[in-house]
Amino acid sequence: MAAEFRSIRMVQFAETDLAGVMHFSNYFRWMEEAEHAFMRSVGMSVVQEQAEGTISWPRVTVSCEYFAPAHFENQIELRFKITDLAERSMTYEVEFYRDGFRIARGRTKAVCCKMASGKFAATAIPPDIRAKIIGGGAGPVATS
Amino acid sequence: MAAEFRSIRMVQFAETDLAGVMHFSNYFRWMEEAEHAFMRSVGMSVVQEQAEGTISWPRVTVSCEYFAPAHFENQIELRFKITDLAERSMTYEVEFYRDGFRIARGRTKAVCCKMASGKFAATAIPPDIRAKIIGGGAGPVATS
Amino acid sequence: MAAEFRSIRMVQFAETDLAGVMHFSNYFRWMEEAEHAFMRSVGMSVVQEQAEGTISWPRVTVSCEYFAPAHFENQIELRFKITDLAERSMTYEVEFYRDGFRIARGRTKAVCCKMASGKFAATAIPPDIRAKIIGGGAGPVATS
Amino acid sequence: MAAEFRSIRMVQFAETDLAGVMHFSNYFRWMEEAEHAFMRSVGMSVVQEQAEGTISWPRVTVSCEYFAPAHFENQIELRFKITDLAERSMTYEVEFYRDGFRIARGRTKAVCCKMASGKFAATAIPPDIRAKIIGGGAGPVATS
Repeated sequence: MAAEFRSIRMVQFAETDLAGVMHFSNYFRWMEEAEHAFMRSVGMSVVQEQAEGTISWPRVTVSCEYFAPAHFENQIELRFKITDLAERSMTYEVEFYRDGFRIARGRTKAVCCKMASGKFAATAIPPDIRAKIIGGGAGPVATS
Repeated sequence: MAAEFRSIRMVQFAETDLAGVMHFSNYFRWMEEAEHAFMRSVGMSVVQEQAEGTISWPRVTVSCEYFAPAHFENQIELRFKITDLAERSMTYEVEFYRDGFRIARGRTKAVCCKMASGKFAATAIPPDIRAKIIGGGAGPVATS
Repeated sequence: MAAEFRSIRMVQFAETDLAGVMHFSNYFRWMEEAEHAFMRSVGMSVVQEQAEGTISWPRVTVSCEYFAPAHFENQIELRFKITDLAERSMTYEVEFYRDGFRIARGRTKAVCCKMASGKFAATAIPPDIRAKIIGGGAGPVATS
Repeated sequence: MAAEFRSIRMVQFAETDLAGVMHFSNYFRWMEEAEHAFMRSVGMSVVQEQAEGTISWPRVTVSCEYFAPAHFENQIELRFKITDLAERSMTYEVEFYRDGFRIARGRTKAVCCKMASGKFAATAIPPDIRAKIIGGGAGPVATS
């Protein structure tokens, strides 16, 4: 069973909509924030300057299931867990909990890319980055 | 083969990120905009006052696949198509095209709900709303 | 000299734009977050259910001056200070600091309102709310 | 009296908040969209590749006054007008109208800059850009 990287986030006013709940698109911003917080927790930024160029992680597929709405000023715990680490890609899951109750679950597959002026080229995850991800708080991870 | 409801949207500056492309979370906002534009095209608002209360459509699952990035001021065509219309839910797909080339595809399953002060209760899609959806520009639709 | 309420916020990826810096509109979201954090620090929510209805604070005028850009993952300190507390309105200032250097300053004038279904009616700030604001971490405050 | 550049924008669901109205921060995104639409109307992009580098327009000061709220699916007319064109900066005003009634007014002062990797250096507005702005739909303009 993989370990998890946990963080806490409060629903802000501007993140709600007229239905009185957090707009569903914001869960994707939160997932990304959890990913980046995990990256920082292992000593990396998601935008990583390398000798061979800037490494970035554009998304290939993302999804989210919603079980219950989140309201203004709710404290939500994000449980981030890497579920697959392939040669060029990383897949992770984020579960959203409020008071111990899971209100949503999202998944992201992101590809390791060299980035230049809005263009991306997929590349093998550099060994030092791979080592940090595997050694991080959201591992040990499955590797494919 | 179901018909499609098409709309055009331009990538705005505030929708881009430091990678120079549209942030992936905004595709979900665009999908919802296409859904609401479809609703208006058949004479409805997505927030519908009914005798029995306000009808709204919270999301159950959403997903998006990304094939190529979108850049600032790109004109993107959204092709909205309902793929399933069940007793209480609607599932649709939105394909994103730039210059005839498909750059992304998203899916949304939304449940018909009566809404009051941030609480939602699933309900059968009212017959008049169902009739408008089926008769709309994104049908004939599969019904489950 | 009025005391200040301080909070820290990190620039998130989705808040940047293609110029590589935080989009200017997000400073207004941050100001509001600082205001709400201040409200919580004195035991209130900005959306306050009162005997006489829901109290909310729509904005009358807002502004921001920008001195230097903020970049991805910058840690920014927000210094929130109420500068005027009138019968029906509150005016505050937020200064944005990075590494002790002020990068922006914003101002907001918000009016105390009773709110119902998207309609607002200005009202005198209820005495208990006024007392908490004056007693809070961002006072003593000027009163007009 | 300066001419105006007009555009229409509909309030989207994700732009509303739990108070049932458009969140105040979104007026700044709309103002920028109006500015960029004006730029395109005179044959320019706001991100302009020039011989001497990329020209961009970071904001120096922005403000907005709110007279009445905007609701979901409201059609809002934006009236964009340049009020000052200095050597290195442009100041404009956007008025927001719903059904002929002015609901908000915003102002932006933006400085002409050469941009490289998130750094900005103020520069005189290049003559060809100045000529297009003056000749555009939101002029004749005052020049300072």
